[in-house]
Amino acid sequence: MTTTPLNRSLEPLGVSIPSKVPTHWYNLAADLPEPVPPHLHPGTREPLGPEDLAPLFPMSLIMQEVATERYIEIPETVREIYGMWRPSPLVRAHRLERALGTPARIYYKYEGVSPVGSHKPNTAVAQAYYNALEGTTKLTTETGAGQWGASLSFAGALLGLEVEVWQVRSSFDSKPYRRIQMEAYGGICHPSPSDLTEAGRALLKSHPGTSGSLGMAISEAVEVAAQDPNTHYSLGSVLNHVMLHQTVIGQEAMVQLEEAGDAVPDIVFGCAGGGSNLAGLTFPFLGRNLREGTKTRLVACEPSACPSLTEGEYRYDFGDVAGLTPLLKMHTLGKDFVPPAIHAGGLRYHGMSPMVSHAVNLGLMDAIAVGQDEALQAGLVFARAEGIIPAPESTHAVAGAIAHARNATEPEVIVIGLSGNGQLDLPAYSQYV
Amino acid sequence: MTTTPLNRSLEPLGVSIPSKVPTHWYNLAADLPEPVPPHLHPGTREPLGPEDLAPLFPMSLIMQEVATERYIEIPETVREIYGMWRPSPLVRAHRLERALGTPARIYYKYEGVSPVGSHKPNTAVAQAYYNALEGTTKLTTETGAGQWGASLSFAGALLGLEVEVWQVRSSFDSKPYRRIQMEAYGGICHPSPSDLTEAGRALLKSHPGTSGSLGMAISEAVEVAAQDPNTHYSLGSVLNHVMLHQTVIGQEAMVQLEEAGDAVPDIVFGCAGGGSNLAGLTFPFLGRNLREGTKTRLVACEPSACPSLTEGEYRYDFGDVAGLTPLLKMHTLGKDFVPPAIHAGGLRYHGMSPMVSHAVNLGLMDAIAVGQDEALQAGLVFARAEGIIPAPESTHAVAGAIAHARNATEPEVIVIGLSGNGQLDLPAYSQYV
Repeated sequence: MTTTPLNRSLEPLGVSIPSKVPTHWYNLAADLPEPVPPHLHPGTREPLGPEDLAPLFPMSLIMQEVATERYIEIPETVREIYGMWRPSPLVRAHRLERALGTPARIYYKYEGVSPVGSHKPNTAVAQAYYNALEGTTKLTTETGAGQWGASLSFAGALLGLEVEVWQVRSSFDSKPYRRIQMEAYGGICHPSPSDLTEAGRALLKSHPGTSGSLGMAISEAVEVAAQDPNTHYSLGSVLNHVMLHQTVIGQEAMVQLEEAGDAVPDIVFGCAGGGSNLAGLTFPFLGRNLREGTKTRLVACEPSACPSLTEGEYRYDFGDVAGLTPLLKMHTLGKDFVPPAIHAGGLRYHGMSPMVSHAVNLGLMDAIAVGQDEALQAGLVFARAEGIIPAPESTHAVAGAIAHARNATEPEVIVIGLSGNGQLDLPAYSQYV
Repeated sequence: MTTTPLNRSLEPLGVSIPSKVPTHWYNLAADLPEPVPPHLHPGTREPLGPEDLAPLFPMSLIMQEVATERYIEIPETVREIYGMWRPSPLVRAHRLERALGTPARIYYKYEGVSPVGSHKPNTAVAQAYYNALEGTTKLTTETGAGQWGASLSFAGALLGLEVEVWQVRSSFDSKPYRRIQMEAYGGICHPSPSDLTEAGRALLKSHPGTSGSLGMAISEAVEVAAQDPNTHYSLGSVLNHVMLHQTVIGQEAMVQLEEAGDAVPDIVFGCAGGGSNLAGLTFPFLGRNLREGTKTRLVACEPSACPSLTEGEYRYDFGDVAGLTPLLKMHTLGKDFVPPAIHAGGLRYHGMSPMVSHAVNLGLMDAIAVGQDEALQAGLVFARAEGIIPAPESTHAVAGAIAHARNATEPEVIVIGLSGNGQLDLPAYSQYV
């Protein structure tokens, strides 16, 4: 591991940071009754050592992946960037309550205020920071709909890293706004498969005219990162360190709920694809449940078209289609599962974060599956009451909460994780308006 | 004028409103050394009476159009809706200052946090409220790029009004995201010219295959509003009451600047099309200049492709192409001026708000013209430093401020009006990335 001297863009500016921006990330591993099963080497099936991950990730993130301490300090430079949009608002949904005629008190925690419109920058900034600190000059990644590629490009712009993104060709062709967003931040975006990598060229030969897949794009991004010691790879969900970075969401929500006089909500709904938004919102509540015996119920809302938690097996599986990644213990539909082309592109993943999978397996969290029609209809109800058009992913949590609130007979407290806005995914609503 | 009993959606919810949301709109007319020239009847060329406007506007807004009192109280229901995203952030642009190497202290007032992504809801909510209060059940309007149609649809959803929008056909066809955004809020959006109105049918006959224009769309919206006593027409800029509603921007900025220790900025840059964003930000500063002798310089930044303030005549002209509206005293390029298809669709108007025109004519404000290339390049500099991709309209103010800051030798205080984000206008950047 090489460490460069702090360059100017990594030094804190010394600006004031809103006091509600957390000072530490919360690590659920410290409070779980049983440890999260380790990632395994795909060849030996033995637990991975740090050196196995070193070609792709900086050592700081590798150590966070296996960390067991409860709190990990957030670097000042990262907190300053968080302070550009954090704390994100926790809003009492008075108008939605009125529209539903429910006695419940509904709150939503809104991550759509970030510069790219979702929760993804919470980890993009952290990953870019640690990489830059250890001398990485370029990050590669894959993206589907483009939220993650845009978030990493944003983080790269602020922290002085080149960012190269392989975007699934079907999205690259059909969603030009996201590509321009990445490029506006200085990122480079290629359709995948591309002729820039061996993997891409082989795929173009074996699958002429293919519209691409996340699995193919991962292969290209990993190949480029592995070839250059100054280039690393970055993943936007699934891994433990990503869950860790997102816990700023739930920590803020707990403080904000306490100020609103509803410190211990009855139930929290979050959408779940790879698991990072769900974990970020719910893990701090789950930790309190485990430490203090509070009884906040936590509900993962996944799409019924890609139901890894509600219908998948809990076993070791690969994170990618090609079977090149470490083996992760997770709820999975199988690495070869191809989800239908639902609108919530961010939830189309065959597996689920090992930490989330473990928590569900231990009975610490619940999971429900929501159909696309119900989800997007709920999104419209929300938009017309609260004025914010939710991201298609977020509508799954909205739908879960609305169904629950409609049945409520007591003034129970409901929290919705609104992971993003739907500005760049408006076509998802076109058949429902 | 008929007044309906308050229906449920017009009553305040009784929720807490952030203390920095202004309680009153500020009316520059109270502080101007000479009154704003009145609007004239197009037939008689005599000053308009309230009854002349009654077929199109509710009496509350007609009275605001000619009001001379300094402060007009904001209804509680409107303030509660403002409180969903207001006060909008005033941000010190530390990273931009560093990127420019300027000794200036740069702030931006960011209206892109509103649910539709710009300042337009500030007046849409007020106009929908007064209309609903006086019994209007439907609002019609025209829209070009779609920001205004989306904002009025948002306001209609929250206040229980039907909203029907005629969108210039070229935008309707090329910008489907905005149309879906309007529809998600329950608005109805037609391409213009349409076969739904006499004006539209005549235009389709006389101009077969036309891609439409704002002037044509205004004719259709006005025709429909004039035919039904329960339907009114709504305009998103230019008129005095629109300038009034937008002054929440500048009032908040003054409080926020004082808290930041820079109570009297040296210079404020705002983009100018019809004038509402510029007026909203600058009029409160201008009023203080006039009352207290402060010397904050105020600069309107218009596109060099549509330079009404810097190259237009100051005279009475029609607000629309067909010559059906009242005559307004304004800086104008002539009602038949057809601006080129620049990316900042919100700045493509042949005239300029009479209040802004009057202030410029009296020498109380300055105006500069900025080219599209310079504007969008400045937008990219801003995006890569501050993480927010500005709306193409806003980039004109950003460009003005950046040019000024680059020449600064003293730590002067610069304020930029960032009227919106560029999420739904990303293609504007495509040739610059």
